[in-house]
Amino acid sequence: MNDIELQQLAHRQQISDVLISYCNALDKMDLTAIEALFTDDCFVDYGPGKLFQSRGAAALAKSLERMWRWSRTSHHLSNIQIEFVDTISASAVSYVHAWHERPDGTTATILGQYHDELIHEDRGWRIARRRMVMNGCDAGFTVDINPFERIAPPDDWIAPDID
Amino acid sequence: MNDIELQQLAHRQQISDVLISYCNALDKMDLTAIEALFTDDCFVDYGPGKLFQSRGAAALAKSLERMWRWSRTSHHLSNIQIEFVDTISASAVSYVHAWHERPDGTTATILGQYHDELIHEDRGWRIARRRMVMNGCDAGFTVDINPFERIAPPDDWIAPDID
Amino acid sequence: MNDIELQQLAHRQQISDVLISYCNALDKMDLTAIEALFTDDCFVDYGPGKLFQSRGAAALAKSLERMWRWSRTSHHLSNIQIEFVDTISASAVSYVHAWHERPDGTTATILGQYHDELIHEDRGWRIARRRMVMNGCDAGFTVDINPFERIAPPDDWIAPDID
Repeated sequence: MNDIELQQLAHRQQISDVLISYCNALDKMDLTAIEALFTDDCFVDYGPGKLFQSRGAAALAKSLERMWRWSRTSHHLSNIQIEFVDTISASAVSYVHAWHERPDGTTATILGQYHDELIHEDRGWRIARRRMVMNGCDAGFTVDINPFERIAPPDDWIAPDID
Repeated sequence: MNDIELQQLAHRQQISDVLISYCNALDKMDLTAIEALFTDDCFVDYGPGKLFQSRGAAALAKSLERMWRWSRTSHHLSNIQIEFVDTISASAVSYVHAWHERPDGTTATILGQYHDELIHEDRGWRIARRRMVMNGCDAGFTVDINPFERIAPPDDWIAPDID
Repeated sequence: MNDIELQQLAHRQQISDVLISYCNALDKMDLTAIEALFTDDCFVDYGPGKLFQSRGAAALAKSLERMWRWSRTSHHLSNIQIEFVDTISASAVSYVHAWHERPDGTTATILGQYHDELIHEDRGWRIARRRMVMNGCDAGFTVDINPFERIAPPDDWIAPDID
């Protein structure tokens, strides 16, 4: 293994750490910690509508105050894949299983993906651009998140006789 | 750390990437991408029944066309553990939380494990053998997947008085 | 990358492996394997009440016999974050999505966190202290697990007009 590959192993760990820190900080509603995970001029796009798009880390943190409308949340991150553009920029895709509970006890679950671009600043890796897409959700989740697009079946596809 | 340990760290990352790519490609229904993750002569066993066992990457990809019967899916991979047999073969166990939605809006969730054998080919790590087992599922999931076997309690075990 | 950073990459993998092994062994009800993952004098705290706190690996394994009251379980671990105190001690936070099914078919799901302290013994990394906290759960889960504390909204916070 050469030095670049070795360095990338360390950077993968650091990037994973940033992505996980977002989830844990969101469940804790530590918006100061979340603000520090993004570049100052980041752009974050959870879905159509001004409420779900933010420019700048400070505006994002402010915007995420909306998460207090839930009484409890739990964001489970998996399927982390990272690709390096060069030594100071990378892209990442990760999956999130996000559970939310309202004060009245009803819940909403979304299964989605974060598509991120990260930049290595002096203080470490930061998210410069995040786009969320939704694989699916339960009936309780009604926020308009960008849908994840599947490849459609060929015209001659016939559904198999299984449940 | 010696060179073998170092190489294994890199290979763990590459193998994890293959396992995750399967999930993401399945949710996208990118069957061409899935075919490329397996050895040409792979054997995949999701459960009893000819429909759920495939020999060869091409046959597997063809078989997975059945997943189009779902309108949306989300496969969340975790608990990845990898053991090396030698420098070009490894075994892996991973957990999957797989959510499926039918066109009528009803859903089916399975919690299972992939037990894999992987081979390092010139083009990278590929899955040569996959057996899926099921830890559990919800009432909506009715496919006959291989059950995961727990160790049974001793004969003198008494259930505790808790819920 | 210097030797310490390199060694930590290897140790992160070994610690992750211990945390995952706990989940997999619990789903298999391999209590012998679980006992071997903890230090002899470990302290484990799942919640208030004598039944959910254990001192010593043997007592913990004995205590976990209670899990046989479930007919099936599935523990999905994610969001693993590890910090090193020195070369032989570390702390880890991980998320668990734990599904449980009773013999009557009813289920209980908890979404929680393990907060662990680990020690590197001659035989490898072992969990010396574990505290579980709960982000949330469904209506079926009634065990009294330590709650995870969120930061409260400021006094002047106004709930947004979204669902």
